[in-house]
Amino acid sequence: MTTFSLDERLRKDCHVIIETDSLSYLLHSNAEVSWFILVPHTNQTEFFNLRSSIQNQLCEQINLLSEFVKLHFDSDKINVATIGNVVSQMHIHVIGRRRDDVYWPDVVWGREFDKTYDSAQLSLVRERLTSYLGLSNTFNI
Amino acid sequence: MTTFSLDERLRKDCHVIIETDSLSYLLHSNAEVSWFILVPHTNQTEFFNLRSSIQNQLCEQINLLSEFVKLHFDSDKINVATIGNVVSQMHIHVIGRRRDDVYWPDVVWGREFDKTYDSAQLSLVRERLTSYLGLSNTFNI
Repeated sequence: MTTFSLDERLRKDCHVIIETDSLSYLLHSNAEVSWFILVPHTNQTEFFNLRSSIQNQLCEQINLLSEFVKLHFDSDKINVATIGNVVSQMHIHVIGRRRDDVYWPDVVWGREFDKTYDSAQLSLVRERLTSYLGLSNTFNI
Repeated sequence: MTTFSLDERLRKDCHVIIETDSLSYLLHSNAEVSWFILVPHTNQTEFFNLRSSIQNQLCEQINLLSEFVKLHFDSDKINVATIGNVVSQMHIHVIGRRRDDVYWPDVVWGREFDKTYDSAQLSLVRERLTSYLGLSNTFNI
């Protein structure tokens, strides 16, 4: 695919959990909710402009990540969205929501937060997601 | 598919533009943005729980609707999202955003609005979308 460089805003706001040749898995720093972001390595900025084979692969990863978030964070609802008004690099939010989270039932974008992840928590998420996706640890960065 | 009844909140907040056997196309009453909502006729509440054949069909309709919104409303960015924290019936937002819309670059959910559609505008949207999707007018309701 294309030469990939993660958008600076995404890099600032998120932890890079896993990176493969075609996709980056990010975890947003806001630990109030289980907020993952998939970044396909493409220059396209709109989902509908992706080739159908790429869309299908992306949907498979959205499904897997959604299942993971549902199971591992005991989520009541999964929010899936591609917005891109601020960061044009295509990225898909996969967010585990709980009825007792601080924002429920409102959406999470544009909210202040204090709760963040420590390195042990990040390592655990990375280990579990890597295992769930069936990826080798060599994909971790 | 299943016997389908549109959620009361969606019926209250939106205009039903087109209804086929498997899918309803809604237009949100908030005319500040070009806010369409696809409602697949299913009892599933999570996208990842849909069968892959249904997901593929839904993605095709998301693509078509996104293209339509991009072209007919001169949109700068298409926002696609399935949230479902308030209305559990599965529905996918396909929203045309412009850099000069009142909410840009923020998301549209939970906002107040004054601007709505009149019946002539609704008829025009219905006619154009029906034509774009290649549907017979008999699908209109």
